[in-house]
This record gives sequence, structure tokens and C-alpha cells, in this order.
Amino acid sequence: MVSTRNPLNIGAAARAMANFGFSRLAVVNPYDVAYREARSAVGAAALLKRSETFTSVADAAADCRLVIGTTSVGHRELQHPLRRLEFGARLMRRALAQSPVALLFGSEKFGLSNDDLSHCHWLMRIPTVDQNLSMNLGQAVALCLYELARDPRAAAARPEKIRRATAGETGQIVERLLETLRRSGYINETTAASTVEKIRRLVLRLQIAGRDVPVLLGMLRQILWKIDQSP
Amino acid sequence: MVSTRNPLNIGAAARAMANFGFSRLAVVNPYDVAYREARSAVGAAALLKRSETFTSVADAAADCRLVIGTTSVGHRELQHPLRRLEFGARLMRRALAQSPVALLFGSEKFGLSNDDLSHCHWLMRIPTVDQNLSMNLGQAVALCLYELARDPRAAAARPEKIRRATAGETGQIVERLLETLRRSGYINETTAASTVEKIRRLVLRLQIAGRDVPVLLGMLRQILWKIDQSP
Repeated sequence: MVSTRNPLNIGAAARAMANFGFSRLAVVNPYDVAYREARSAVGAAALLKRSETFTSVADAAADCRLVIGTTSVGHRELQHPLRRLEFGARLMRRALAQSPVALLFGSEKFGLSNDDLSHCHWLMRIPTVDQNLSMNLGQAVALCLYELARDPRAAAARPEKIRRATAGETGQIVERLLETLRRSGYINETTAASTVEKIRRLVLRLQIAGRDVPVLLGMLRQILWKIDQSP
Repeated sequence: MVSTRNPLNIGAAARAMANFGFSRLAVVNPYDVAYREARSAVGAAALLKRSETFTSVADAAADCRLVIGTTSVGHRELQHPLRRLEFGARLMRRALAQSPVALLFGSEKFGLSNDDLSHCHWLMRIPTVDQNLSMNLGQAVALCLYELARDPRAAAARPEKIRRATAGETGQIVERLLETLRRSGYINETTAASTVEKIRRLVLRLQIAGRDVPVLLGMLRQILWKIDQSP
């Protein structure tokens, strides 16, 4: 975090680091040196206390073989290769397997200075809709860390399916529902056959989840019991 | 946003919506009704002004065919299918092509209530490292919208390559460097051949970017000029 003005943003960054498993926070020339008290660091107070303060980007990133800057682009003319977050995060993940990597975030108002940028190997931007509207600093940090921690295999996996009721389970529900409807006088003797088919199709369309079968059967059992009580 | 306590979080959510191209913000029972003045809504003031306030989730999501809740899980026992953000966002994108979808965020302290959850078809969680440490609300909203707006094709694409100098460009640099080294007395007549090869290989290892070729040639031209001035 370079020249951060609002300590809440350093706190928010620390919290996002804790959320996604990052631990080394370096703060360069913060506007408010009392940043370690930031209230938005719920669950990240220890990380914030361990953070180190530096007076230059060079010192903060001294042990990193790769230094990446973040930018919202805007109208500044860039001298660096610029990569979208998804691409850049993949390259950073690969580099992180070898040695520490620094990810720089500039001040809320001005971003990284040209001097800060001169320490960067390349730059990364978050693919927002409108490049002239920058992101909130704490949110930008969270997005970058989320993307860095993203598991490509988990992300490519298929969404888990909800187990649907089996044909047998659905059949049980249909039978108990028909019984209820017969006893309550809903099913008419002359049209019974077509009505039964309609009801069966309706129940199938419901795509009842397996876990809901006992609940539905219980409801119907109770209704049947109540009907039997009536004269 | 349901029962949000801190107006800054509603502002942060509005800003993230502007960042990722979302426009309909519904606020249910905010703790602070003056949320429309939230300062963190840089660039999203219009969106915040257009936001609607409701007294129930049912009213807020009345026109949505799919209602998704967010949760940090913790120790609560869930009655709903729970999906990781990457999976859930894909399902939501598919549903959004057909009709509006509601994405609910609960209060900073308690999340969504059981009553709020009863309106949800399923729940989504952000895959954080420690499920007991919830995310900052504004950051959680930004992550969900980022993932929803994520372009699967762009994310699967290969990182763009930096155009390297062509063999011809590298050759020009090598020639001008050799010229400079000869005139400055670095290259010794007796060992010239092996030295030239070494220097050529060194320059190739540099993997000079195409855009840097004119800069390097200019530097060498200037140095040559300076050498020629010396007696």
C-alpha cells in the first residue's frame, strides 16, 4: 500500500489478506501513521500489527523478484505492459511458486506515482465497465487477492447438482397426494383417470429435491389425519 | 442490501455496481435511512439516488424469478443448497439471460436472517481461507459482481504477449553496441571474434521488447557521438 490516505483502506486490505490467505503487508509512506488501529481490520488485527512500514517502494519490495503495479488506467500514458487481472494473476501465481512477488496499490486519489511505477515490471488492471471510474481501494485489493487465490480447477468444475427425488420417492408423494385429494372430494369419480394423470405430471414438474421428500410426506400425512377427524 | 447498518457499505456496493455494470439497487430496512448520502459512492451517486427502499425482501425481489442469498456460513445450519461463488455466478448469469435475478446481502454483523433466507432458492459463499472470518460487506459485494461480470472467454484466453524485438532489430542493436565497444577500446583485436559472439548472445538473452528498440538505439547513438568528441 503506497501513500494510502485513509487508514480504513489499509484495514480493509488487511482483512482481505486474511480472507484469502496472504500475510505480508508492507505500507509505504502512509498519510496516517496510526493505520495499525484501523477499525475495518476485523479478524486481521494481528496481520496489521505485523505489517512493516517503509519510506520507499524500493525498500518495501527489496526481496521480490517481480513487482507488479495496479492501475485504473484513466488517461495516463503508460510505459509498461498492461495486463487484465485474470491474465496477470495467473502470471503472478506462477512467479510466486519461485520467489516473493510484490503487488503495489497507490493512493486513493492519484494511484501510483511515476516514480512508484518505475519499480514495476508490468501493470495490472481490473476489467471494469468504465475505465474512467476507478474502484474503491479496499475493494480493488480484495478483488486482486481473490483472483490470485482462485483455484482454476475449482472454478472450472461443474456446479454441484441438487439430488432430485427418485421416481420411487415422487411416486410415494403422488400416491399420498391422490389419497388426500380423493378423501377431500377433489377427485371426481367420472374424470378420475385424466385427473390422476394431470396430478402426476404436475408433481413431476415440481422437480422435488430428495431432501424435501420426508417433509412433503409428513405434511400430507398430517392433512390426511386431519381429514379423517372430520365427520 | 438487507438491514445494512453502515451507509458506507451501501455506498461501496453502489460504486462496485457502477464498476461492473449493474444498475438496480434495492435497500431493505437500512439501519441508517440517510444512506443515499454515503460518501464512498464515488461515481455512483446517480445509482444511489435511483435506489429503491423496501420493508421486506419479498417486496424487493417481487419481480425476480431467482433469489440468491449470500452467506459466510460460519456455524449456522443451512437448509439451502450452498454454492461456491464461481459456480453460483455461472448459474446466475444463465438465469439473468431470461429474467431479473436478486442477489441478497445481509447485515454486517448477522448476515441474512432465517426469514430473509426463506425467500432464497439457494445460497452462495465466497471461497475464503477461513470460513469463520467473514468478509467486509463492501468487498463481498464487489467480489460477487466481479465474478458475475467475468467474461469466461477473456478469462480463459492466454495472457497477451509482449512483442519481442525482431532478429533484425536485435541485430541493429548488436551492431551499434559492437561499434561503441570497438571505439571505446573494450574489444581487443586478438580476442575480437569470441568477444563478439559473447556480446551477441548476451544481447539475445535480454529479450528486448520491440518498443524499446528505438530507445536503446538512441542511447547508443548518443554514446557514440560523445566518444567521437573525445580526443
